[in-house]
Formats: sequence, structure tokens, C-alpha cells
Amino acid sequence: MPDTSFADALLSPRSIALVGASGDARKNTARPLRFMRKHGFPGAVYPINAGRAEILGEKAYPSLVGLPGPVDHVFVMIPGSDVAAMLDDCARAGARVVTIYSDGFGETGPEGQERQAALVARARALGLRLLGPNSIGTANLHTGAILSVNAAFEADTLLPGDISLVSQSGSMMGSLLSRAAARGFGFAKSVSVGNESDITVGEVLDALVDDAGTKVILLFLETLRDAPTLARALARARAAGKPVIAYKLGRSEQGDALAQSHTGAMAGNDVAVEAFLRAYGVMRVRNLETLFELAPLASRHAGARPAGPGAGGPARVAVITTTGGGAATVVDNLGLHGMVAAAPPADFVRRIAEQGLRIRETPVIDLTLAATSAQYRMLLEHLLRADWCDAVLSVVGSSAQFHPGLAVQPLLEADKPVDKPLAVFLAPEAPESLALLRAGGIAAFRTPEACADALAVFLTAGGQPPAAGEAFPWPARLPRQGMLSEHEAGALFRSLGVPVAGGELADPAALTHAVPYPVVAKVCSRDLAHKTEMGAVRVGIPDAGALRAAVDDMLESVARLAPAARVDGILIQPMETRLIEMILGYRHDPLVGPTVLLGAGGIAAELSPDYAIRLAPVGLDEARQMIAEVRQTRLIRGFRGLPAGDCEALAHAIAAFSRLACAQGTQVVEAEINPLFVRAEGVVAVDGLARLA
Amino acid sequence: MPDTSFADALLSPRSIALVGASGDARKNTARPLRFMRKHGFPGAVYPINAGRAEILGEKAYPSLVGLPGPVDHVFVMIPGSDVAAMLDDCARAGARVVTIYSDGFGETGPEGQERQAALVARARALGLRLLGPNSIGTANLHTGAILSVNAAFEADTLLPGDISLVSQSGSMMGSLLSRAAARGFGFAKSVSVGNESDITVGEVLDALVDDAGTKVILLFLETLRDAPTLARALARARAAGKPVIAYKLGRSEQGDALAQSHTGAMAGNDVAVEAFLRAYGVMRVRNLETLFELAPLASRHAGARPAGPGAGGPARVAVITTTGGGAATVVDNLGLHGMVAAAPPADFVRRIAEQGLRIRETPVIDLTLAATSAQYRMLLEHLLRADWCDAVLSVVGSSAQFHPGLAVQPLLEADKPVDKPLAVFLAPEAPESLALLRAGGIAAFRTPEACADALAVFLTAGGQPPAAGEAFPWPARLPRQGMLSEHEAGALFRSLGVPVAGGELADPAALTHAVPYPVVAKVCSRDLAHKTEMGAVRVGIPDAGALRAAVDDMLESVARLAPAARVDGILIQPMETRLIEMILGYRHDPLVGPTVLLGAGGIAAELSPDYAIRLAPVGLDEARQMIAEVRQTRLIRGFRGLPAGDCEALAHAIAAFSRLACAQGTQVVEAEINPLFVRAEGVVAVDGLARLA
Repeated sequence: MPDTSFADALLSPRSIALVGASGDARKNTARPLRFMRKHGFPGAVYPINAGRAEILGEKAYPSLVGLPGPVDHVFVMIPGSDVAAMLDDCARAGARVVTIYSDGFGETGPEGQERQAALVARARALGLRLLGPNSIGTANLHTGAILSVNAAFEADTLLPGDISLVSQSGSMMGSLLSRAAARGFGFAKSVSVGNESDITVGEVLDALVDDAGTKVILLFLETLRDAPTLARALARARAAGKPVIAYKLGRSEQGDALAQSHTGAMAGNDVAVEAFLRAYGVMRVRNLETLFELAPLASRHAGARPAGPGAGGPARVAVITTTGGGAATVVDNLGLHGMVAAAPPADFVRRIAEQGLRIRETPVIDLTLAATSAQYRMLLEHLLRADWCDAVLSVVGSSAQFHPGLAVQPLLEADKPVDKPLAVFLAPEAPESLALLRAGGIAAFRTPEACADALAVFLTAGGQPPAAGEAFPWPARLPRQGMLSEHEAGALFRSLGVPVAGGELADPAALTHAVPYPVVAKVCSRDLAHKTEMGAVRVGIPDAGALRAAVDDMLESVARLAPAARVDGILIQPMETRLIEMILGYRHDPLVGPTVLLGAGGIAAELSPDYAIRLAPVGLDEARQMIAEVRQTRLIRGFRGLPAGDCEALAHAIAAFSRLACAQGTQVVEAEINPLFVRAEGVVAVDGLARLA
Repeated sequence: MPDTSFADALLSPRSIALVGASGDARKNTARPLRFMRKHGFPGAVYPINAGRAEILGEKAYPSLVGLPGPVDHVFVMIPGSDVAAMLDDCARAGARVVTIYSDGFGETGPEGQERQAALVARARALGLRLLGPNSIGTANLHTGAILSVNAAFEADTLLPGDISLVSQSGSMMGSLLSRAAARGFGFAKSVSVGNESDITVGEVLDALVDDAGTKVILLFLETLRDAPTLARALARARAAGKPVIAYKLGRSEQGDALAQSHTGAMAGNDVAVEAFLRAYGVMRVRNLETLFELAPLASRHAGARPAGPGAGGPARVAVITTTGGGAATVVDNLGLHGMVAAAPPADFVRRIAEQGLRIRETPVIDLTLAATSAQYRMLLEHLLRADWCDAVLSVVGSSAQFHPGLAVQPLLEADKPVDKPLAVFLAPEAPESLALLRAGGIAAFRTPEACADALAVFLTAGGQPPAAGEAFPWPARLPRQGMLSEHEAGALFRSLGVPVAGGELADPAALTHAVPYPVVAKVCSRDLAHKTEMGAVRVGIPDAGALRAAVDDMLESVARLAPAARVDGILIQPMETRLIEMILGYRHDPLVGPTVLLGAGGIAAELSPDYAIRLAPVGLDEARQMIAEVRQTRLIRGFRGLPAGDCEALAHAIAAFSRLACAQGTQVVEAEINPLFVRAEGVVAVDGLARLA
């Protein structure tokens, strides 16, 4: 085995073989060699081409066997059908990592997936790690190791820097690099992961956490594969103070479906992925260019995150400007993201006046006419130390266009503590000012939308990973697979500690029970997921006679509509009262694993999404945050003088229910309490279901 | 009077006086002369400065009196306190328009507003028109008549074109010009309207409709002043086929408040302004740069608007790309705006296959590997004539960066009909390709967000101005001012044609009535706006005895909580049933005039905005659209098998209610029916109020 570590072979290979390198300069497959020569890669490069002895003026080799030296990393650009046959040679050449540009594997359907699985199995047997297939390659912008066909590297010079990019889209890797480079953002490494047959985003991220050249990590995501590996790497990145920023497709249903079909990935659920990213501290941006524009903000303040808004209030941004209209374009967008432009309090205004500058107690501090450069800097330094704002935004007007030095000088020269973020928006076209700010490490934004996006994402980041969660031993008398009946689901939830409506399972013939009238009666069957539609629920039954009639009616209806349903009995429950109805949901998400959801109940809630979702299990604090996020709970939290509901009991129910994630002896696929009644005192689960693996 | 028309004096002056022109080149007030010399203005320019005989090497004049020739347009840059004294000289010099850069007027508060009003009165007496005060000036980019201190004109060359800009923000005028110029967007005229003391946005727009050099009009708005003038000008612009695109601050509450306070304008209501803009066909964009990026799309297809989605379905966009990831970034945003990427139907795929190109029936047509330039063009031409999509989006990958000619060639060369919009997004940084597309008149976008914004705004534009609305003679027995009692408001709504719950006004002592029990009883008083809070409403009263008790109770409560309230009687109504509750609102908005609102009823609806708003009056078609826009109405439109409500009766009620706008003999300030019950057959107003001027 070679000395090179996996991470070095992947990110910083010293010797490279290019399998399928073309001698025809117009072809994509001729690019990696040209790129590496253009950008001065100092290591060994071996073009492999059975048909040629020379490529672009350099010696070519017929195969990987018998090269003059060992190879760290092989880049494969031959037809997909020929790749498998080549793996043994890769191992023989001493490679640790093989990046496969070739396509025709997992992204094409079931047959391709089989070919891909075989490829990975063989690689594992040989001790090789695979990147791709369908990867556009990797690049180290410091060493010039460009194992990539991406046109972005045609640029005459590359801009090395401390940002690294991991992308599930090959073409977007290049697009992002070109956009960032035009703005002076230098990169350390960029990696296109392709189909992630072996090496996934999480593993690349893990390597980048250890990479001394990388300070900020950007992710362009279409889906999420191997969440546990990614979670571990993200936890390490957080511990190392390396911020991770992500742009993920799928905010709209259509975008989600498209990203999935495009990548051949498993169908996923964007809101679950969002909960995952948030839990592990990833800053997910909404605007494409915010992905790199946010980097300086994230990087500068990574070690000392701002205290944030605290107490659930909106994040407060102090705004200074030389263009009222320009500032308003950002502030308007801040408002859309739930942040406020904060007006300086009287004592702050007084303190600034003592320094010779008059400002007003308005949400935007307009310095258009009044201030000198020294005064601007003085004010900025005071703002960056003020306790009434969580961030400072400077919006610069026309001076940024024609006097770039002058315009950004106070921003560059000011003494800037790391515990208060500073963002700059330049209203006019002002590439020089943007470049000066970039060079000074100050976060500057081209558009008001990206600027507001960045501030919102940065100031509200910081979720918590799922709670440790005590193991939950599966109740002995409950089944361990398939669908539970409502009665069984009730027992399950009760054993977790969720209050469940008292109920008795009565024999349909005798209907003996001790529940006081009026009662609710339901046909209990694990085969009836939609009881109401099957006529299997009756409420407000006043007496025994009415109960008999109702049950006969229900059984007739079930026999007719669901003849195959096995009936366990009749569930008889007391009529429960409530202030509001909620839904508690649990799902083992195929991409991110256990999740818990709190949603508004009732049919009207279906018209407009109103829920909070987290990775499960959650603790009480997280449960309380979920309650605060669901709009409907305002109805029991003092809205318009309505009676208050028992939010603490609700929080306990959420936390208890989320422990389905800790079930031992089986796996819960999904479960739902619908409705969960919230009362002035306590909560009660009125109906529910659970499905096991 | 001079020969020059108002429009020419405003937009294309031939002789200009600069009052307060400075000889110190570093001062803002030295700029206009320098700008005009730099950009070759061929007309007469007279610098006016009492203290100097020469300015920047040119002859200066001590005053406007005794100039060598007449003046079309005076630009005033002296202290605000000196402006009034100078108007007479402007008139004597033959000026038609005076643009006032000076500040210290309406934007500073009540005193400044008085100064401003006096200024306008004097100008009117003299036959002068005023632009400003607090205007950064006007510019004609074709003649070089730059009456502006805006730094944007420091640029060495100006790019003349066919777009004109009207801005309520002075600094944003320059910022937008500089951003647009950097992208190759040439301008005809740009006008900063300042405080709009006399000449408003509407009047400038009106002049631009007649301006042969202007094809598209952009508005940067902070508020709206003089809606009637703007409405007339917008109607003329629409008739002339000149698209109007607006960026308006105030989408967030904070942004709205800020824009208002910043401009000293009346408090407004952004949603009402949005309804106004929509009614008059203005395309309101959400992203700043979309303002000019949308221009080619709007301009090219102005004469023949696309048929649109029709039948209330989402707009359908055909997407072709050479970068799957890049296309997905736009499609994801399209989804957020309620549009769909439409998959080509089988017969279309077959037709394209007959031309030698295989595409798939997927929502994004990916041509990464398959197509030649000729094939790309062929497909594009077919898409632009296909009936299954409302617009075509082309997303170009890395070739746009390094082979700009090649990448955009098929887009430029394709035969493009004007009845199907084409938009282009370039995934990488590709300024040359953007410029080529710009030169070719094709709408191309820098960011996926702006691209989706533009398509959404363009494809969903096209509202209707308020209906003509037959005059509504005020019912003789109703008051003509102040608050109406509930009983009177009921009579008013009934006379408009809105069904109102039958009710009788009974004497509190006798309580004689013929309404069948159970009944609702309310204390009727024009002094009680919030009856429920005052304990003045009781429902479900079963008999006469209970009625007596309830009324005594209510009267006691009112006497205690609102001792000053005069009681007209007790309103006794039958208990009404309903499927859903809605709110119908009418408001004479201070900015845009009569508006009508349909909103979801019930307390839960207050948690999440769910309403539609229009300029009033509305016709039945518009009323039906409003119903479709309010989410809650889905509950009576076939949602989950729930019973259907009478949407036609609801539409009739909306249209009838909106005729409050046509009231003769008084002005309704605001009115509300809350709740309006919607039933399987018919609707009924259960409670309501109205306030007159």
C-alpha cells in the first residue's frame, strides 16, 4: 500500500493517472491533462491510452500496469462498460482512490444500479475507494491537481483560497466556481461526487474537516445519501469551527421530484432533509449565489456565533446607509425573513452625539449628508459593540461605484470584533468595491435578496442534533411487525408516556363496558387505516341502546366496504373535550431517519401548511420550540384573550412520542396521533395508528 | 410661452439653466454641467451663480434674468430656503419645468409640507411645473441632457436605449442605471420624482407613453401618490403596448412602514397598491435586478401577450438545458411561484424524433450530450410553437462561459414568434453570453431567482381595471355620514343586493318580534363597534323567557362597559346555518381608493393571511377569481368530498358589495360583513358595519 492517506489521495493526490485521456484537444477527455499543465500541477501525471504513445506532447502509457511510479488517484474517462475491467489495474498501480467520470451506472435505472453495485463490491475487495460514477471530477486549486473535465478550469488562472465545495451536480460545480471566481472567492478543493456509489458527500466533508487549507465548506445538494456518515462529519465540522453552507434543491415539490429523478436517488422529503441540515448546524441558503457570498460571514464569525435574538424574538439588525432607497431594498427583504431593522435606543444616540455625530432613533441610520469617513467608522465600531442589535448591515450608495477606496475604507479600517456579524450591500454596480471588501474578508453582497437571505440564514442557524434518548423497550404484549390496531397503538403511546383517551375494547356481541355515556365507538381493526371513510366511527352515543344500533350499523358498513378487514372488537371511549386539535406524527424518513412532526389539526389546517418537524427523539426544549413554530398553537398561547392551553403537557407529549425513535426490538416506520386534544390542563391522544417494519 | 411642450421640456429639454452650479469640481452641484459636456449635450446650458463669471471654463450668469435665449428646463441646486424666491425668475426665463434638487420640504415634516405647498401654489400661478423638491434630477441618455447630480452619470459613456426609468428614490435611480448599464441595457430617459409636489409618477409615465424613444417603462416605487393620474397613464401605456414593470418597496410590513416614513408619504397598504398595479397591468417584480432583466421579455411580447395558463391552471414552462443541475435551480423556484415545468407530450416527442433528435417525456429536456447546434435550434423552434406550454426556458451550461458564440447561437438564430416568451438562464459566470443575448433582444438572467421571478410575473400579469359599476343611489332612509348601526348597515347591504339575515329591531322593553325561535339577539347601537367584547351578542336563545333574560343581561353589560353608547333597539335574528364563514371587506384606501376584500372567516384564519383583494367595484368574473384565490373556499369546492357551497351566490355578493364604491351622495370609508355565511344554497350576511366619511 502507498503512504498516501485516503484524504490526501482524494483531495491532494501527488501522482495521477488519466485513463482514457484523449490526444484530440477538442475532446472533454483531453482536458484534465491540459488543465494540470496550465495550472502547474507539480506531481506525476500518467495519461493512459492504449492507442497512442504520445498525448498533447507528453508520453502516454498503454495501461496502468508498469508505470514508472505509484499512483495515488486514477481518473477514469472510458466508456462505462469498460470500467469494471480496469479496477484490478488501478489496484495494481497502487491507487487508493478511483474517480469515475464515465456514466451509464446507477443514474440509468435498475440495470445500471446492478452494474454499479458490482463495481463497488469489486473495488472494496481490492481496497480501492470509488468517487462517482458520473462524477465530473475533483480539483485541488492550490496544487493544480485538476482531475476534472469541467470547463470552468479552462480559466487562465485559478484563484486558490480557503473555501471548499462538494457538489452532487457536476455542471453546477463548475458554474459555482466560475461565479465565485469572478467575485474574488478563492477555493481550496472542489469535489463532484456523482452517484456516490462508494464515497459520499459525508465522507468528503469529513476529509475536508481535517484539511488545513479549508476553512468553509459549501455543499450543492440535490438529495441526501448516507445521512449517518454526513451527520458524523457535520458534527466534527461544527466542533472544528468550520462552517458548512448548503444550497439544496427541492424547496418546491416539483424541484424535489426533479432532483430525485435526475439523480436516480430514493424519493425523499425536503422538509425532513431541512430538519436534518438544521439539526447539524448547516446553513441552508435560498439564493444560489448566497452559497459563496455567505462564506466570509460564516468564516469570520464561526468561532464565536452571535448570541442571536434570544427569547424567541426576531433577529435585530442595525442598518447604516448612504442610500435610503438602497437600504430599504434590503430591509424589506429582512422583514420577509422575519428579521427587524432595529432603531438605536436613546442612550446610544446620545453616546454617538458625544462623539460629534447626530443620528436619529430610526430603524435605518441614514448618513447620506452628515458624516465624514472617520465618523462613519466611529459609528460602525460602536454599532459592532452595541447590545441592542444582533448584526450590522451597511448599505453603500453611489460612492461605491466611483470612489471604491473611499466608500469601503471605513468598513475595512474599522476595528471589528468577531462576535457581531457585519454584512455589506452595495446598491450600485460596484465590482471594485466588492473586490476590496472581499479582499478585506468582509461579507459583501451583490443583491438585496442575497444579502437578506444570508443574514437570515446566519442569524437563525444553530439547531440541535437529536437528543440522546433513553432506549425504549418494546412492550411485550404488542406485535413487533406490521400495522398495529388502534387499541394497540393506544397502548404503545401510553407506554411511552403520552396520555391516551381511556377506552375499552368490547366484544361486538356483548358490548360490555364501564365507560360513562355519552361515548365514542369505533371498529377496532388493524386493517382499517381510514376508519371515518369506512363508516367505522360514531361519536356522541347517549346510551346502551344507541350503542347497540350504532355498532350494528358500523359492522354492516365495514363488512360491505372492507370485507377483508378482521375486527378485533369495538373500542369504546369517553367523549373528550379540547381547546384545539393537533397532529403528532412520527416517520422513519428514508433519507434522514427518525423524524417527529407537530402539526395543526382539523381539516382547515390542511389548506395551509402549519407544522414543525425535527429529527427524533427531541428533548423538552426542542419540543417547546416546535410548539412555538406552529401557528395554530397561538390559539392557546394568549391569542385575543382565548383560554390558554397546557403547552407544557404538549411538550412532554411531543418528547415522549418522539422516543419511538429509540424503540428496541422493532423499528417503527410511521405513527400518528390524530387528533391530539390540547386542553387547559393536559393533553389526550384520541386516535392513532402505528406501522412497524 | 415657449414652443416646447411640457413633455419635451421635462424629458428632452433643448436649453437648460443650472441654478446654483458650482465652480468647485468636487461638489455635487458642479456635476450637471460636467456630465452634459462629457456626454455631448448639443443644446444651450446656462450655469447660474451670482458669485462667479465663469464655471468650469464656461461663462456663468448671475441670474436667470437676461440670459441670451429662452430656457426649457431649470435645474435648481440652491439651499431649500432660497428656492421660492427664484420661481418668478424661472417663469421670466421662459421655463416650463423646474426640477428642484434642494431638500428641506415635504420630507421633513409639517412645516416643510407647508413650504412645499406654497412653492407649488406659486409655481401654478406662474404657469410652471415642478419636479421635486428632493429630486436627484432627470436625464435624457440620447441627447445628453443630464439635469442630475447622480454619480451614475460619471461613467465615461452612457448607453442609450429604449428603456425609461421613473424612480421615487434618487439614489436608486443611479444604482439601477449603473447595474443595467453593466449588463448592456440602454436607457432613453430616467427621472427622479423626489417629493412629487406637483409632477407625479403618473404624469411622467404619461409623457413617456408618448415618447417615441421609450418602449418599456420601469418604476422604482416607495409609495403611490395621485393614483387617478397614474391609473390613466397606465391605461394609456397598456393601450399603446408599452409594458410597465415595477419594483415596489413594502412587501414586508417593516419595508412598507420604512418606505412611508422615508418619503413622508401617507400611511398606505401595500396589498392595496399591489391590487392597483395588477389591475392596471403593471408587472411587479420581487427581485431588484428583475426590474430591468424582465424588459426584453416584456418588450418583445408586449403586443401579443401569451394566452397564459387558462382555466386557472398553473403556467406551464417548457425547459431545455445542457445542465440538469442548473435547470433544476430555476425549476425549483418556478415551483415556489406556482408554475410547472411541463413535460413534452408523446406526439411532440415523436415529431422531434422524426427530425432526428431523441428527447424524453420528462419535465426538463436535457440535451447535455445528444444535440448539435442545429438540433437545438430545431427543438427550440418547435417548442416556441407548441400548444402544451406557455413559455420556453433555456438553461445553458459551461459552454456559455467559454464558447459564448457557440452557446447562444441557436438561441439567436432560431425563428422566434412573439406569442411565446423565451427566457434564458446561464448557469456559469458568462458575461459575454449575457451580452450577446442582450444584443439579440433575448431575455437572459443572471440568477435562477430573478429568472423564475420574471417568468412568474410575466405569465401571471394582466389584471383588469375596476368595473365601470352602475351608480348606487344612497338609500333615502339611511344616514349619510358617520357610523351606521348594524341594523342600518344590514339595510345598506340588502339594498346593494347582498342577502342579509332576516332581523327585526325590537323595543328593548317589549321585545315584540315574529322571528321563530331559536334566535340571536344583539344590542343595536352605532356606538358599539365590538359587540362581542361588550357582551352585546347572544346566540341560540330558545324562547321568549330566555330572550328577556338575555336582553336584560346584555343591556346591563353595555351600560357598564360602554355607558355612552346610545341603544337603538334589540336586533333579533333567526339562527343561520353555514358550511363556511367568510369576511367581505370594503375600504376606501388612502392611496388607491375603493378596494374590496374577500377573506377567510373564523379566528383560526387570523393566524395565516388568506384573502384576495381588488380595486372596487368588481364584476362577476373578477369575483370568481377572488373566490379561487382564497384557500378556505376550497372547503366548499370539492375538497375531500366535503359538501359544495354556493360559489355563484358568493360571487354575486362580492360584486354587489363592491358597488359601495359607486355610492352617490356619500362616501363609504369602510364596511365589513363578518361573518358572511356560505351555504349549499345561497349566502347570508350575519353581521356587518359601515363607516361613512
